[in-house]
Amino acid sequence: MEEFSKIITEIRQKSPLVYNITNFVVTNISANALLALGASPIMSYAKQEAIDLIKISSALLINMGTPTPDIIETMLIAAKTANNASIPVVFDPVGVGASKFRNEIAQEILSKVKIDIIKGNASEIANLCGVNIQTKGVESNTYIENIADLTKDLAKKHHCIVCATGKTDIVSDGNKVYACENGHEFLTKITGSGCILGSIAAAAAGVCNDYLKATVASCLIVGISGEIAASKSNLLGNFQVEFFNALSTFEPENFKNALYKVL
Amino acid sequence: MEEFSKIITEIRQKSPLVYNITNFVVTNISANALLALGASPIMSYAKQEAIDLIKISSALLINMGTPTPDIIETMLIAAKTANNASIPVVFDPVGVGASKFRNEIAQEILSKVKIDIIKGNASEIANLCGVNIQTKGVESNTYIENIADLTKDLAKKHHCIVCATGKTDIVSDGNKVYACENGHEFLTKITGSGCILGSIAAAAAGVCNDYLKATVASCLIVGISGEIAASKSNLLGNFQVEFFNALSTFEPENFKNALYKVL
Amino acid sequence: MEEFSKIITEIRQKSPLVYNITNFVVTNISANALLALGASPIMSYAKQEAIDLIKISSALLINMGTPTPDIIETMLIAAKTANNASIPVVFDPVGVGASKFRNEIAQEILSKVKIDIIKGNASEIANLCGVNIQTKGVESNTYIENIADLTKDLAKKHHCIVCATGKTDIVSDGNKVYACENGHEFLTKITGSGCILGSIAAAAAGVCNDYLKATVASCLIVGISGEIAASKSNLLGNFQVEFFNALSTFEPENFKNALYKVL
Repeated sequence: MEEFSKIITEIRQKSPLVYNITNFVVTNISANALLALGASPIMSYAKQEAIDLIKISSALLINMGTPTPDIIETMLIAAKTANNASIPVVFDPVGVGASKFRNEIAQEILSKVKIDIIKGNASEIANLCGVNIQTKGVESNTYIENIADLTKDLAKKHHCIVCATGKTDIVSDGNKVYACENGHEFLTKITGSGCILGSIAAAAAGVCNDYLKATVASCLIVGISGEIAASKSNLLGNFQVEFFNALSTFEPENFKNALYKVL
Repeated sequence: MEEFSKIITEIRQKSPLVYNITNFVVTNISANALLALGASPIMSYAKQEAIDLIKISSALLINMGTPTPDIIETMLIAAKTANNASIPVVFDPVGVGASKFRNEIAQEILSKVKIDIIKGNASEIANLCGVNIQTKGVESNTYIENIADLTKDLAKKHHCIVCATGKTDIVSDGNKVYACENGHEFLTKITGSGCILGSIAAAAAGVCNDYLKATVASCLIVGISGEIAASKSNLLGNFQVEFFNALSTFEPENFKNALYKVL
Repeated sequence: MEEFSKIITEIRQKSPLVYNITNFVVTNISANALLALGASPIMSYAKQEAIDLIKISSALLINMGTPTPDIIETMLIAAKTANNASIPVVFDPVGVGASKFRNEIAQEILSKVKIDIIKGNASEIANLCGVNIQTKGVESNTYIENIADLTKDLAKKHHCIVCATGKTDIVSDGNKVYACENGHEFLTKITGSGCILGSIAAAAAGVCNDYLKATVASCLIVGISGEIAASKSNLLGNFQVEFFNALSTFEPENFKNALYKVL
């Protein structure tokens, strides 16, 4: 608990700069989520400044939600530079499984650079494991029986943290497996709540070298904030507003509502 | 009435995947509007995955609000593939009339692929008919005397459904002409309410082969939701929140407030 | 006071078309801010329509928040065309100082086209003056001792208006220097409030030839709207909603709360 508290405290104190190369749907809400937690966002797509931006950043988030060859090239340069500088890289393989193009991008990224945290929904993680799940939109919330094993295996394979979101969020370093139970159905009904989690995980990894803890903390922050928001309103428009209220007022004490276990 | 009710029910039950190639201003709110109604959105710009994404989609929306040659190329590939797969294509010619570039794009799209539903504001529809209306921004709400005739003629010419939005929304298949009177002035004061209508029309066409009915239902859903939102608050910021509340709770019963007639 | 009142009244009456070539993070909120004040927005990135769009626009805003070579090329064409047509050009050098790429873009723009209003946060303005301030994210709010002098010098050098935002917004034409004290800390915690100010300054310059007055009025509109919003809620999510409520109901009377002085 204390370790999670330290993460939110340090994000607010150190205000890590998170360099986001993310999809066009969530640029605004991802930047706002980071600001709400006290982090500093920068969003960019240009390969020409990838090396310079890594120099001033505490973490990198690459999210392939609206992929184009140019953007993927920027991601690879930024991630390789981050690897050399020992800056954490979070990868969100949005929509992998939906097209051969996305499958190839995900494989290219995973083979060419070192990813520290892979965060996807359960069907995306399953797809990365070679399990062919038919993706139905990028907010897919398919239940996958053996997702804990798949998550653990993928983490072992890539020597990184893997997070598979769903009703239960599974987080593993290839050895330990956490199951996080906080959250609310409404989070699946607004676009980009998963993408926001990726950016928050990057902020957390920017202040905490234990990326497993950083990722679990991020799942808890998003899940608990979603619960707080849903407790304030049962309407979807208000929920979005309340979710940002909850993120911006998230304090260490909120972790007392954390629901998680080590499997 | 019952036919419109069936459309909203089936969107919520079947959760059609709507593939959106849309402008950069509305990606987030269009995805959220589709999720609020129970549909599944995917947003993409890459030609490399256009064919694959059509395979898993129930409908395609192409919106030229922020056009670039690359994006237009993707639209043409996606729409041609959709045509071959008998998947409905909705085209929103945002800002046609504002530049020669947009005029040429609109003509290229209309000549190279089969569009099932054209949705624009009245001045955009008039421009497609060769009537030179000076566009004043993309939220233009110019009143055009003979818009019903223009809409009908354009529908006849392109063998498709045409929807011209305005204080009264006109929808025609070239034969029948509907006039839909629901709506609220505030819908013209938030960016993208028209773009959202295009995405919703795609979702509706994804579950209903009668595209005339699907388009009228979409106008009614947006118009009635706007009225509900305006009844909750007379402030523009709150209106946006209430509009998403209304979309997310839209039920068949809401159609009892539908105001439309066949001209 | 009366001169500021006239600006908001004329924006609402004339509804100037503001052509925005802006970053992907703020497209939606910038368009909505302009609509809330009664202006008409058009957002575009394509060089193919830059000349045509200037013909119908009252002002141009170029914002390099998410720069790519293609977009910068469009900005240069649009700005040069605007110069020839005597249409005001507002430049927001977002993130200058964060990368060599952004530094070069800013210098290219300032050397190749005539800018009428430069608006940045204090560290961006200092960077343009050759003072090396380490940028920490694009919402940087670093306090810079001699910002009033730097702002005045930059304005003199480029024969334009310069606005450096911060706790106090400094605006100068190279001769007179205004210090505007309205605003609220929350404006620095939502992404894009500075970008919105740039778009509003363009709208104001589109109806008022005195660009110094237009820029001061814009700072006051954003600052006072921020104060109104913060007085309605002390939560960040609600603040965003209330900020749009405040912009959409901003009236000449609101300037009675203006806090500014000529240094």
